[in-house]
Amino acid sequence: MRILFIGDVMGESGQEMFEKTVPLLKRNLHPQLTIANGENATRGRGINEKVFKKLQKAGADVITMGNHTWDNREIQDFIGTAKKLIRPANFSAGQVPGIGYTIVKVNSVSVGVLNVQGRVFMSPSDDPFAVGEKIIAQLEKETSIIFVDFHGEATSEKEAFAWNFDGRVSAVVGTHTHVQTNDARILPQGTAFLSDVGMTGPYDGILGMRRESVIGRFKNQLPTRFEVETSGGQTLGAVVIDVDEKTGRAQKISNLRIDPDHPYFE
Amino acid sequence: MRILFIGDVMGESGQEMFEKTVPLLKRNLHPQLTIANGENATRGRGINEKVFKKLQKAGADVITMGNHTWDNREIQDFIGTAKKLIRPANFSAGQVPGIGYTIVKVNSVSVGVLNVQGRVFMSPSDDPFAVGEKIIAQLEKETSIIFVDFHGEATSEKEAFAWNFDGRVSAVVGTHTHVQTNDARILPQGTAFLSDVGMTGPYDGILGMRRESVIGRFKNQLPTRFEVETSGGQTLGAVVIDVDEKTGRAQKISNLRIDPDHPYFE
Amino acid sequence: MRILFIGDVMGESGQEMFEKTVPLLKRNLHPQLTIANGENATRGRGINEKVFKKLQKAGADVITMGNHTWDNREIQDFIGTAKKLIRPANFSAGQVPGIGYTIVKVNSVSVGVLNVQGRVFMSPSDDPFAVGEKIIAQLEKETSIIFVDFHGEATSEKEAFAWNFDGRVSAVVGTHTHVQTNDARILPQGTAFLSDVGMTGPYDGILGMRRESVIGRFKNQLPTRFEVETSGGQTLGAVVIDVDEKTGRAQKISNLRIDPDHPYFE
Amino acid sequence: MRILFIGDVMGESGQEMFEKTVPLLKRNLHPQLTIANGENATRGRGINEKVFKKLQKAGADVITMGNHTWDNREIQDFIGTAKKLIRPANFSAGQVPGIGYTIVKVNSVSVGVLNVQGRVFMSPSDDPFAVGEKIIAQLEKETSIIFVDFHGEATSEKEAFAWNFDGRVSAVVGTHTHVQTNDARILPQGTAFLSDVGMTGPYDGILGMRRESVIGRFKNQLPTRFEVETSGGQTLGAVVIDVDEKTGRAQKISNLRIDPDHPYFE
Ligand SMILES: [Fe+2]
Ligand SMILES: [Fe+2]
Ligand SMILES: [Fe+2]
Ligand SMILES: [Fe+2]
Ligand SMILES: [Fe+2]
Ligand SMILES: [Fe+2]
Ligand SMILES: [Fe+2]
Ligand SMILES: [Fe+2]
Repeated sequence: MRILFIGDVMGESGQEMFEKTVPLLKRNLHPQLTIANGENATRGRGINEKVFKKLQKAGADVITMGNHTWDNREIQDFIGTAKKLIRPANFSAGQVPGIGYTIVKVNSVSVGVLNVQGRVFMSPSDDPFAVGEKIIAQLEKETSIIFVDFHGEATSEKEAFAWNFDGRVSAVVGTHTHVQTNDARILPQGTAFLSDVGMTGPYDGILGMRRESVIGRFKNQLPTRFEVETSGGQTLGAVVIDVDEKTGRAQKISNLRIDPDHPYFE
Repeated sequence: MRILFIGDVMGESGQEMFEKTVPLLKRNLHPQLTIANGENATRGRGINEKVFKKLQKAGADVITMGNHTWDNREIQDFIGTAKKLIRPANFSAGQVPGIGYTIVKVNSVSVGVLNVQGRVFMSPSDDPFAVGEKIIAQLEKETSIIFVDFHGEATSEKEAFAWNFDGRVSAVVGTHTHVQTNDARILPQGTAFLSDVGMTGPYDGILGMRRESVIGRFKNQLPTRFEVETSGGQTLGAVVIDVDEKTGRAQKISNLRIDPDHPYFE
Repeated sequence: MRILFIGDVMGESGQEMFEKTVPLLKRNLHPQLTIANGENATRGRGINEKVFKKLQKAGADVITMGNHTWDNREIQDFIGTAKKLIRPANFSAGQVPGIGYTIVKVNSVSVGVLNVQGRVFMSPSDDPFAVGEKIIAQLEKETSIIFVDFHGEATSEKEAFAWNFDGRVSAVVGTHTHVQTNDARILPQGTAFLSDVGMTGPYDGILGMRRESVIGRFKNQLPTRFEVETSGGQTLGAVVIDVDEKTGRAQKISNLRIDPDHPYFE
Repeated sequence: MRILFIGDVMGESGQEMFEKTVPLLKRNLHPQLTIANGENATRGRGINEKVFKKLQKAGADVITMGNHTWDNREIQDFIGTAKKLIRPANFSAGQVPGIGYTIVKVNSVSVGVLNVQGRVFMSPSDDPFAVGEKIIAQLEKETSIIFVDFHGEATSEKEAFAWNFDGRVSAVVGTHTHVQTNDARILPQGTAFLSDVGMTGPYDGILGMRRESVIGRFKNQLPTRFEVETSGGQTLGAVVIDVDEKTGRAQKISNLRIDPDHPYFE
């Protein structure tokens, strides 16, 4: 079982890059399951139904979210019925719309996909370790292949989560910082890990946002409108994980960065 | 001019890895200047004179620091006289011991080395953009080669700093998260950039600390002693940057990760 | 039913002030139940058994805690068996020693006492609103008198908690900031509220800690040992609440500040 | 010299309460100088020229600001020329519009008014202790009466600031938490201090904002529009300070809370 995961898709630039690149990646890498983080897909803040469907059509089997889940209010109109759209499971004891995990069938094989959010340097949420434990214990009864998108800021929390569930999940990949890390590895008990997959969208923005606005904000704290950068090239952050379907153990993890400095050739 | 930078050296494990690996790297890569972040060099917290000298002897020309600068009280005994030990320049308007930048002579070429610290998700310090501007403007009069260790948590602040000084400094490399990023690039005006170089020390700890302690802390918030992990292998995070000595523009940046999964062969 | 609550007792100075003043207050005000926050009782950090017993002997029927609960490791030796010592209920889903609420009998009347901790500007904990809801719903079955010590930093979170449970609990009083607020009131449905009761201990420290250390830390960020201030006078922060025993509604709330500028006369 | 200070004026409700109450207070208390914090005066976020003039007309001689300074973009149109409108002095090394202190003439007596902002639990700004030192040293040359509005969250930082400048300024009063504290005192060297003056506006909101929105946000983190509460009564938080005009030492400090539970009678 090969799983392809695409990091935070940022606005129209990210959608475009996704539509252009994911089909190529699929043709060459033959993943059986493609997952993407969509928390910034609509204009950098949240996701609406139109963009959700666009990403699905372009190849995303499951969309995960993060701290920007509710930024676009339209999500409340379709998250209740959208299968294959999950938000962090550790939001308000589940007293909010949407679900935090899903099981997808890939041919006859079940894969659990879980989205949780960190608490360090982020707004309060339920304990990701406790909520993760509960859901993973449940998923383990149905499948040995469990994929986790841990949406968080602090490297310590991401590493701690992965080590804590080493051997019980197939992969823990991080999202949120918008910068891909270079620490892909398989932990001793078989869990593939990458601290952050990075983002998909403008290559010359700051985390994908307009440079001038972000720099200005750092220099004078004056309010600026944060918009997705429109100039320059595009990047795509991804990771490919091969999982043994019997044991659920990861066999291989490779992170992938595509941008003008690292073009992708078929 | 080739510059080698080694990420946060963590405790004895990090010192050992440094002593073992840096000479090899020097033999093969022939850097003319080697810089290392030493904020965690003595038992994970700060640095004392003995370890400072050890790292110098093992090949570090300049040691940079970060938020752990004052953790080991012995630093106050020698930071006042230690040339080639710099702490973040934006600490308390300079009303604390030590200096934030230095100029080193490499044969007849001057290289400015600057250490600044971020403010996002970190304890208060002076504005790194304003302090950076002031010092860089000064260094520019003396040399066109300026190397910056930006010690910070947030990817946005690191990217903003690098873009802001693009073309005025040769390189901005980040430290502090202890996880190497995979975003090395040369910005349009010639500044080499890497969000984080990663750490040097235990490969099987969490940011180099004992796994059990860190995981325990996340799960129950009970106090635990944080010590450097002693089991498992070792890793070294580094980056190599080639700079045009005339213009100060970066020509090449390559990040380097050495660990049991990625052994280094001469 | 009259309840007397004493704010964060700070170190020996706080113990002394408690021992000296609480008996006077009891003689004059005749509270039937006396509660004190003891998170700083032993040298400013946590509480050990000796001090716990000392405060009990001096008149505290129940001791509440806060973010400093685990600072003194000795607490782990007796919190498991100490009745009348409660720590924030929303710690790690109860997977840590101790309890978060208790029911005390005052003559034949039951009073529920609950301790919860805020999440804004504090380290992560479980949702105080959700945990509070669960416990309060349970306590409501046994008694109509429920007293809450909400240990938190942000005024917004404290006010929101009180308004949310208005009419269901007799009182919500805040602790943690060590500064008494002047907003005592009875909310429309009968819940008495005070954002913060303030502290008990050194009058001339900064939150009870040595002035020089705290000021030094703000000015240069150099590490200093934080110890309880020993010079100067002493203060005691308290609040007195009268509750209708039948309905559980608060009838009166009066905050009380005793210090050299506001001495207490019998 | 008697100085009256009014805490954060919140939206139309706050303006109304200000217009209704300040004239009464002036008639009875005869302050020679009236200062108000206006960071929330226009719809809870920032201040525009119309409201600035309204508050002036209603009796405010000087308006101070805080972290909401830039929330209403119209401020940038008039802050450059508005005398008697000051924003925190420690914003971006002065590289932003406006000024951080002013000197007002009261008959023939000069009074320095300084606005600074804290850094604990707030967005980054320059060091309030260092900036405060610099400006106070300057003001001291011109007058012995200096009044400081320290806009901050943490009680520790406010107390530390006041103790640090004890004897050099006549008063340090805090703003920002919107809850009045009960710790008014005169420090040993003559500086009057109150951690927070509280707010002016809706009595039945949460920090003046709509209860339902704030409580909802705490319970489910879903986005809600934060608007100033419109139901219920009104409160006004104030402090009156008497200063010896020769020495600049405070002689008396009294905090004042007016609301439906504590009506004000002439
Ligand atoms: Fe994102
Ligand atoms: Fe995010
Ligand atoms: Fe470090
Ligand atoms: Fe660090
Ligand atoms: Fe506390
Ligand atoms: Fe406390
Ligand atoms: Fe305010
Ligand atoms: Fe404010």
